[in-house]
Amino acid sequence: MNIIETIPQMQEVRKTLPEPVGFVPTMGYLHEGHISLVRKAKEENASVIVSIFVNPTQFGHNEDFEKYPRDMEGDIELLEEEGVDAVFAPEADEIYPKDFSSRVEVIGITQKLEGNCRPGHFRGVTTVVNKLFNIVGPDRAYFGQKDAQQAIVINKMVKDLNMNVDVVTCPTIREEDGLAMSSRNVYLKPEDRQSATVLYRSLMLANDLYEQGERNAETIREEMVRLIKTEELARIDYVSVADPLTLDELNEIQGKALVSLAVKIYKTRLIDNVILG
Amino acid sequence: MNIIETIPQMQEVRKTLPEPVGFVPTMGYLHEGHISLVRKAKEENASVIVSIFVNPTQFGHNEDFEKYPRDMEGDIELLEEEGVDAVFAPEADEIYPKDFSSRVEVIGITQKLEGNCRPGHFRGVTTVVNKLFNIVGPDRAYFGQKDAQQAIVINKMVKDLNMNVDVVTCPTIREEDGLAMSSRNVYLKPEDRQSATVLYRSLMLANDLYEQGERNAETIREEMVRLIKTEELARIDYVSVADPLTLDELNEIQGKALVSLAVKIYKTRLIDNVILG
Repeated sequence: MNIIETIPQMQEVRKTLPEPVGFVPTMGYLHEGHISLVRKAKEENASVIVSIFVNPTQFGHNEDFEKYPRDMEGDIELLEEEGVDAVFAPEADEIYPKDFSSRVEVIGITQKLEGNCRPGHFRGVTTVVNKLFNIVGPDRAYFGQKDAQQAIVINKMVKDLNMNVDVVTCPTIREEDGLAMSSRNVYLKPEDRQSATVLYRSLMLANDLYEQGERNAETIREEMVRLIKTEELARIDYVSVADPLTLDELNEIQGKALVSLAVKIYKTRLIDNVILG
Repeated sequence: MNIIETIPQMQEVRKTLPEPVGFVPTMGYLHEGHISLVRKAKEENASVIVSIFVNPTQFGHNEDFEKYPRDMEGDIELLEEEGVDAVFAPEADEIYPKDFSSRVEVIGITQKLEGNCRPGHFRGVTTVVNKLFNIVGPDRAYFGQKDAQQAIVINKMVKDLNMNVDVVTCPTIREEDGLAMSSRNVYLKPEDRQSATVLYRSLMLANDLYEQGERNAETIREEMVRLIKTEELARIDYVSVADPLTLDELNEIQGKALVSLAVKIYKTRLIDNVILG
């Protein structure tokens, strides 16, 4: 397995890999969610490249960039086991040299939900993913449904800018109790861990209400909020029942609905979602 | 010669063309300047694609988008004579469908000179050129030195976003009296035409001063302004002696200097430039 730190070297290795090439961009500290993306990429492509890059520009000033968990050695071991062809793990100044001054933005949908709570977050995401796609030149790129809005935004960028990449979104992988896999779960203290299941429980409640015929989005939001508030450690950033394309909040659910939420469990901010319909 | 109006068709044709592929993006109404780019592209590549697209997003509200000169038939005839392989001439809604909401921006250098006079102009340019590069997939793309800042901005976008295109900048082509070739020259009324040469004359004055040893940038700007003001019809937007990479105005010329200006001759806004050093 090639472990690559520079852009020119990545471009050279890329030329030698059998096509089609699948690409899994990550921030490392890999868990089963990432591995499920790698396996899907292996299934569908002749070669697989994984990037590990904790992208500073998608973190806000008060966010967890500095303490974001890292484990390059463990990650490389896991990817080696999966038969990945190349790992692209650049330093920040390789991606953002001193005079770097460009940006790629999707407007509109990036102002909502996560974008509303984390201004500039998606500009950081689209800019780095645009660069990674250009550097790696994949045929397909794999993202997790756990970051639903991220997948929607990247799909929009690819479509709007006519990038030659198929974006594949893969199901959320969960712990046995429903907690969505996330590198940030490592922040959860033992006393937070049980409370953290409230995200999934509230999504299941939404799903149950929907299955029982409830189509009023506000009722679903209210019931979710009520449940989450029973957890003392939980602080809600948002609870949303929205159109899966425009991310506009719905009144009445007619077609599909993206039910998503961001909740702080003590100091750890978690997100999760399901699609109804 | 293929004349192509849709993105999928362009992508199909692209696959059939021998590589390397040279690309000349234009807004049509072709003149000898454009043709010089096409010939350079022919020299250096196995195939040549030219786009003709008057990009609405790079025009300001009070600018000349509506009346920008167009001559598709004449253009196609010229390109056929030059042995171009494909002309990509989409309608605006092919490039910008109704829900289009992405943008590509270079910051910093786009706030100066043309960017200062034409807010949003370069965002329109970088976004459309980014799309065209992704659609056409060229190995090399050709731009004229007449739009010096545009060439600098596109180079910066390509470098920052790691796009796999070589940007080639070709010399300005001029009329016998020095007027830089431009589609907008068609706006010049006979009584403006002689006045319009003041742009080139002021650049030659700058060049002469430099050759005589003048290194004070402000002296050069002042002498250029003095000359331009002898033309009654001329109204100066800017006269600049700047660093060719950062576009910061210079005090003392040490290395190279980009001398550029924008002047309105009655109602026609013209730009031109030379490099000193």
